[in-house]
Amino acid sequence: MTLTEIRPEDLKPEQFIAAQVEEIRQAVGDGLAINALSGGVDSSVVTLLGHKALGPRLRTCFIQNGLMREGEPEYVVGLFRRLGVEVELVPAEAEFFSALAGLTDPEEKRNAITRVFYRDVFGRLVREGKARFLLQGTNYTDIEETIAGIKRQHNILEQLGIDPQKEFGYRVIEPVVRLRKTAVRVVARALGLPDELANRPPFPGPALAARVIGEVTRERVAIVRQATAIVEHELRTTPAFQYLAILHEDRVTGIRDGRREFGLQVDVRCWDSTDALQGTPTRLPFEVLDRIAGRITGEVPGVVSVTYNITAKPPSTIEAV
Amino acid sequence: MTLTEIRPEDLKPEQFIAAQVEEIRQAVGDGLAINALSGGVDSSVVTLLGHKALGPRLRTCFIQNGLMREGEPEYVVGLFRRLGVEVELVPAEAEFFSALAGLTDPEEKRNAITRVFYRDVFGRLVREGKARFLLQGTNYTDIEETIAGIKRQHNILEQLGIDPQKEFGYRVIEPVVRLRKTAVRVVARALGLPDELANRPPFPGPALAARVIGEVTRERVAIVRQATAIVEHELRTTPAFQYLAILHEDRVTGIRDGRREFGLQVDVRCWDSTDALQGTPTRLPFEVLDRIAGRITGEVPGVVSVTYNITAKPPSTIEAV
Repeated sequence: MTLTEIRPEDLKPEQFIAAQVEEIRQAVGDGLAINALSGGVDSSVVTLLGHKALGPRLRTCFIQNGLMREGEPEYVVGLFRRLGVEVELVPAEAEFFSALAGLTDPEEKRNAITRVFYRDVFGRLVREGKARFLLQGTNYTDIEETIAGIKRQHNILEQLGIDPQKEFGYRVIEPVVRLRKTAVRVVARALGLPDELANRPPFPGPALAARVIGEVTRERVAIVRQATAIVEHELRTTPAFQYLAILHEDRVTGIRDGRREFGLQVDVRCWDSTDALQGTPTRLPFEVLDRIAGRITGEVPGVVSVTYNITAKPPSTIEAV
Repeated sequence: MTLTEIRPEDLKPEQFIAAQVEEIRQAVGDGLAINALSGGVDSSVVTLLGHKALGPRLRTCFIQNGLMREGEPEYVVGLFRRLGVEVELVPAEAEFFSALAGLTDPEEKRNAITRVFYRDVFGRLVREGKARFLLQGTNYTDIEETIAGIKRQHNILEQLGIDPQKEFGYRVIEPVVRLRKTAVRVVARALGLPDELANRPPFPGPALAARVIGEVTRERVAIVRQATAIVEHELRTTPAFQYLAILHEDRVTGIRDGRREFGLQVDVRCWDSTDALQGTPTRLPFEVLDRIAGRITGEVPGVVSVTYNITAKPPSTIEAV
């Protein structure tokens, strides 16, 4: 079966929503379904489509990996509650941080997060629950990148540690698989998701762990979370594609209250880009850069140095890990 | 004895030079003197004052620590030869790099460089030579900072491993000790030192080792040397106080020829300052920052990311190590 893209200009959002809701209903019948909500636009749209189709027969889980932005779980749960959807919080911080302990290689860190998410936490929810239908927010770009070898093949059942041959009956439903991000955002707005969520800058799968160079610990995630909140607040009105803060492992010499302090360094990046494949650093006014640096060194304990990325992608990448 | 500053506005450079030359002559008589030339403005002025006073009875050594900027030894030797002064190159790279091997703490790195310079290399030259007079480029700011406890007490004989009680007869002469940098520059020009040397931005004592985060190896110094040459060339017409490149120990993800590259990161700093006690990042045009980043990632092997410092001093420091 060849999958064709539905381009934004061909998308009729109301019709698309009705068709997907009907398709989910047909597929699940009177069964039970489950999905994981990350707070990104893809999984948010899938959650709303699923609830329109199945109501309480869809169990939506928000996995607390301890790597999210400030106030993120509360924000997502509150937002969906206002939309009439109950989200189940699944505490799993300890599992993620113990899998990350001692890892410094970016690929090993990514693998650990993927493994804990799929095999351990979400896999356990699926295997121990009665749902045999999995709703998944795979989009058209994911499929293309998997084919191109940029992303790992992500057969969801395999990732969950479920052998489809042995454990017959599981079925995966991917309602937005024919849409790219722009089209997903159109559907999001048509479903009543607020603009702030529909227009959210992309956030990486490994969450704040992608923004910690070196070992990912609770303490280091707390630092980059605070720096991220400052950068996101100061740049919230920027039309930039994406903006982020990265915590270095390197320490640099600083001076505080007249004394030397061998402190932390945070790298700020802000990107102009249309598709994340190429990007250039946004030419932010120095007044803004000053304020960001002043707030981060003033508010985040231990940070004595803030830098701004001036390298294009390529040869840089959007994120650092 | 209280030392009073000669302020730039009170300085009569020709008179100052004549007085210092006379003082050195009186002190040394028909003896021999030695000094170490770093290529900075202080030791350059002292070298010329000493040669005016003593001619070939002053032995001037340039210690090759392997941590200098691109072409630095050749530049300094050639410049002084044109001024009629022969400088003796003392190869000592191996001693410095073996003392630095395995060290990552900034204070330990600084100590190792100081120890190898004074105790091992220059100390050996002094102890094995016949000179009993040491010319030293200590300036008024050094004295103030020593009193304030910012710099280590630097009794030169003690640093050289010479016990003045036991080994009687050594004497230290500090011709520019009553001048601050601005006044030293005035004297430098009056002595015929070219503007490019007289106006050189400050360069740290530990040289490029101060710009390598983590272990200082020949390979890593070579990388930061190349980045430094690019930054100094691109910013050579900037009226900034100081500009530099720092090599991180952290590696970050980059992309080159479509493939992931876990590469190096260089931090560029350019300071507006009058006295180095406080500083703000120079608001360089983004065109300049773009060009610097493009040249460093394009010309220096393995570098995939370049950042620009946006933090003031304090809480940053001018250098990073």
